[in-house]
Amino acid sequence: MQFFPAPVENLIDHFARLPGIGRKTAQRLAFHILNMPEQEAKSFAEALVNAKAEVRLCRSCQNLTVDELCPICSAPQRDKSTICVVSGPKDVVAIERTCEYKGLYHVLHGVISPMNHVSPDDIRIKELLARVSNGGISEIIMATNPDTEGEATALYIARLLKPFNVKVTRLAYGIPMGSHLEFTDEVTLGRALEGRREI
Amino acid sequence: MQFFPAPVENLIDHFARLPGIGRKTAQRLAFHILNMPEQEAKSFAEALVNAKAEVRLCRSCQNLTVDELCPICSAPQRDKSTICVVSGPKDVVAIERTCEYKGLYHVLHGVISPMNHVSPDDIRIKELLARVSNGGISEIIMATNPDTEGEATALYIARLLKPFNVKVTRLAYGIPMGSHLEFTDEVTLGRALEGRREI
Repeated sequence: MQFFPAPVENLIDHFARLPGIGRKTAQRLAFHILNMPEQEAKSFAEALVNAKAEVRLCRSCQNLTVDELCPICSAPQRDKSTICVVSGPKDVVAIERTCEYKGLYHVLHGVISPMNHVSPDDIRIKELLARVSNGGISEIIMATNPDTEGEATALYIARLLKPFNVKVTRLAYGIPMGSHLEFTDEVTLGRALEGRREI
Repeated sequence: MQFFPAPVENLIDHFARLPGIGRKTAQRLAFHILNMPEQEAKSFAEALVNAKAEVRLCRSCQNLTVDELCPICSAPQRDKSTICVVSGPKDVVAIERTCEYKGLYHVLHGVISPMNHVSPDDIRIKELLARVSNGGISEIIMATNPDTEGEATALYIARLLKPFNVKVTRLAYGIPMGSHLEFTDEVTLGRALEGRREI
């Protein structure tokens, strides 16, 4: 049962295939496109194609970039001896936002997850080992998410890095700033106690 | 502060401009596009451009169509003497879904709304009057939404149609099927009493 003209139904289908967008929302978005100036719709279409065509992975850290090396890897003032290993490009943005970290990154593009059929070969671990074996690295910070898969991936990579004799560290666990002790879950509170430091 | 490569930021911007899509959702959608096969992204882009380029308004009823006349206006078995006036193409789909209506439509593309600077000249009222003045119409069903603006638009058009001497009707107000009297608001219940019919 098709009621809108075919090009409209086609556009609705494409929107509905996006994650978290149902049929009704897709319809609303498609009608928004129909009502926008033609130039704007064209520029949206170009943005879609360009994002796919122009964006590639940095030769060194595997982050998204338009050049061969990403801006962070090619910045002369960054500390080239430290690598922070994250699971995705969004994590790089999150850490950059702190303005606290001056080293380089390595983006794995996923975490090891047997449940989702993601094996160590499916994420960018080889590329990390290649970087480390080239030498000049003094510390590797494992910054995968503190969940089961992130932890397992961090431990797996840490074991692979043993032979290279570099310091491997993990982000600190603890209570988040601005929160209340009474509302903090017991696992986090346990980790915060365990990781307590002298003041 | 820009952290993703420019083509990715550009795509995020375009998604974020859509109604009901915030910055975080736009980011999630853009990353979904980056991870989809190139062919699929291209077909999405084509769907966007095609929907704008190929879809136009039916010469007669102003509904969305790819041909000069929409499939409903050009169907020989439809009753050409009845016109159902709706505010948008989605309302046509809603009424078609009932399989109860066999006449034609007229899509206003909006309702009169001084608050939103929509005057009678901004919606397709002229086109409706032109159709009616051509003759052959026996009934016009006003099927705008039962809210302030929809009501005002229906009354305004009904007054314009007076000189043509056609029957102008309005959809029935009442309690929706499957609902409970105790949960029906008093305005609806009042209208349902007012419009009671013999059984």
